[in-house]
Amino acid sequence: MSDDFKQAALDYHQFPKPGKISVELSKAAETQHDLALAYSPGVAEPVRAIAADPDNAYKYTAKGNMVAVISNGTAILGLGNLGALASKPVMEGKSLLFKRFAGIDSIDLEVDTEDPQQFIDTVVRIADSFGGINLEDIKAPECFQIEDVLIEQCKIPVFHDDQHGTAIVTAAGMLNALEIQGKTLEDAKIVCLGAGSAAIACMRLLKSLGAKQEHLTMIDRGGVIYAGRSGLNEFKEEFAHLTDARSMAEALDGADVFLGLSGANLLEASLLEKMAPNPIVFACSNPDPEIDPALAKKTRPDVIMATGRSDFPNQVNNVLGFPFIFRGALDVRSRRINEAMKIAAVEALRAIAKLPVTQEVLDACGEESLEFGPDYILPKPMDSRLLSSISAAVAQAAIDTGVAQLPYPEHYPL
Amino acid sequence: MSDDFKQAALDYHQFPKPGKISVELSKAAETQHDLALAYSPGVAEPVRAIAADPDNAYKYTAKGNMVAVISNGTAILGLGNLGALASKPVMEGKSLLFKRFAGIDSIDLEVDTEDPQQFIDTVVRIADSFGGINLEDIKAPECFQIEDVLIEQCKIPVFHDDQHGTAIVTAAGMLNALEIQGKTLEDAKIVCLGAGSAAIACMRLLKSLGAKQEHLTMIDRGGVIYAGRSGLNEFKEEFAHLTDARSMAEALDGADVFLGLSGANLLEASLLEKMAPNPIVFACSNPDPEIDPALAKKTRPDVIMATGRSDFPNQVNNVLGFPFIFRGALDVRSRRINEAMKIAAVEALRAIAKLPVTQEVLDACGEESLEFGPDYILPKPMDSRLLSSISAAVAQAAIDTGVAQLPYPEHYPL
Repeated sequence: MSDDFKQAALDYHQFPKPGKISVELSKAAETQHDLALAYSPGVAEPVRAIAADPDNAYKYTAKGNMVAVISNGTAILGLGNLGALASKPVMEGKSLLFKRFAGIDSIDLEVDTEDPQQFIDTVVRIADSFGGINLEDIKAPECFQIEDVLIEQCKIPVFHDDQHGTAIVTAAGMLNALEIQGKTLEDAKIVCLGAGSAAIACMRLLKSLGAKQEHLTMIDRGGVIYAGRSGLNEFKEEFAHLTDARSMAEALDGADVFLGLSGANLLEASLLEKMAPNPIVFACSNPDPEIDPALAKKTRPDVIMATGRSDFPNQVNNVLGFPFIFRGALDVRSRRINEAMKIAAVEALRAIAKLPVTQEVLDACGEESLEFGPDYILPKPMDSRLLSSISAAVAQAAIDTGVAQLPYPEHYPL
Repeated sequence: MSDDFKQAALDYHQFPKPGKISVELSKAAETQHDLALAYSPGVAEPVRAIAADPDNAYKYTAKGNMVAVISNGTAILGLGNLGALASKPVMEGKSLLFKRFAGIDSIDLEVDTEDPQQFIDTVVRIADSFGGINLEDIKAPECFQIEDVLIEQCKIPVFHDDQHGTAIVTAAGMLNALEIQGKTLEDAKIVCLGAGSAAIACMRLLKSLGAKQEHLTMIDRGGVIYAGRSGLNEFKEEFAHLTDARSMAEALDGADVFLGLSGANLLEASLLEKMAPNPIVFACSNPDPEIDPALAKKTRPDVIMATGRSDFPNQVNNVLGFPFIFRGALDVRSRRINEAMKIAAVEALRAIAKLPVTQEVLDACGEESLEFGPDYILPKPMDSRLLSSISAAVAQAAIDTGVAQLPYPEHYPL
């Protein structure tokens, strides 16, 4: 980031007033009569109705369209553990994206504790205030336990976007890239550099979509994660298998896919030469991809490249997922976001990239043309079809798997 | 409430969309460039700034203008303990009033626990997300401990409005009523029916303003609270003094002021006859005042009457206090709302009722005339002078008593 850009980012956050979100009235509150309905004495009626049937909270309060974005700041972006309060701009940013892309009211909560049980206790006690909970920037491995317990204990969807949002968008892009390269997920040899929460979630989802355990190789700071390596936590253990590879070079020998979620520029161009024909490289670390796309293309002209950045083709961007996934879940009042819903999101997302685009979509995305191919494997965030298509698919999957509490989507008036 | 009004209240809450508040963007988020500033990669800059200095959260996030309205639903309005979720319409209503009257962004949180320590732990952990905390509808005596501990443990103002908001508005009205009746707080014999959180807080504030302990008589379900009565909790004990009175009739004999915070129509007209000349009756229970104002006036034509209702003169309405008190506290980033700030609010509020009104104020309040006297002891909620006057007085008191973190008020751009 240039110094000018850094200053622009600070100015954006500070002026004309601090922060990025505000709370506004969604009802008239001008006259004495309005206030009598909104507060005393009128408010007693919805109170009684909710006391009689908790589902009435969806009818008479903002709960059903309200998602809390919750963090403890232990893994903020790539910056590390900077404390709960420092994560607030990120969480407000997420709330901004929820509203901007899916009309979801969202508020950030920073929970000041590094203790998983305290975090869980806190979130469980306030969960009823919301229609859904988006967890964010919580470090591994605590994030796995936290999410698992919260999913069990809360009656509303709980979704750790760093895991599943990343996994869903990555999987959608990867399936399209494999298709273009004439490969299948079932046969693809995949090497994942990084073994944090996003990486584990990506591997789990790819398996769920058909990738073979024995074709997945994860690499962490200690090198290849292989069966029998000492000191692995249970989450890494899940992906340890019998392999002779010990270095990245050995792992990449003949690999079809490199997935970088390592947080740094760690992939040497020479290693690309070892990959199979028509390779796929997702260098998703921000701001510095694991390898520069230009260098990768120069080394391997047959590569399909994706990064986490908006200034290169094929941005793997979580905003392609979470707003629409929650929209779908909220629209059918789903109790959770299950695997079927995640897979439905993957399929809906990748399908959009293959559809012909209208001029309207091109204008919204600021593009002259968008045609499915090596440089367009994922839709652009400004594509309005994301909302209708993904949320409908997620809602339907919730209905089909019995976790929806409504028989058909009720669209919240946006 | 008529059935029509009840239905209108439910409709108001449900249509055109559920609830009364929404979260909106306060910044542009249209272009790719906007999103790069608001989220990745720009958001890293305010994150770093806050990690370096927590006060930067006031500069780069919505924290400084954001108040959480928090309840556990153990004492909802006059309806009792109906659970956390059922309190949500009230808390959202409070958020609506914060915005409507003082431009404060506010979000409701319902904490699902009746255990005071769990409630405290939860609120302490999420407090940093906000600029202030308004506690609401928490039953006595737990509310006292909860507020005391939270004030100590949080770096931001924590204010239990059922206590202090009620006390401030009541005290302002009472001081004006005493002045009109030619009495002083120092000499006034005051009888308080009810000994819940609002009543205790009113008695404490009146003492703070000069009322004499031995002139204050509280009455609960067990009758007069007198020194030596068994089974009193520490809060009632605080107001037990030597008195021969045992019944309401005996307590009201020669009393100047009756303050009703009992929750029901409990004051017989015949008892008014025992009060001193030019008595003052605040019958604040909702929806049914302790005595009907018409009946009271018929029995004692020399009475000054106030109620909690908007359809009688002299409404004692918390909305005259809390939005402006928090506005003042936030404007100087006060660490707490202390006694001096409460007293400043009382004085500023009562002073407004004595000022001449402009046509603009009359129009806003829907009144033909407003002149300080027995039927106008408190300003109307729609009076725009409340905001400027009370918040300035509260902010100055915070500065004067050293709890403000800014040397002068910084007005949040509304």
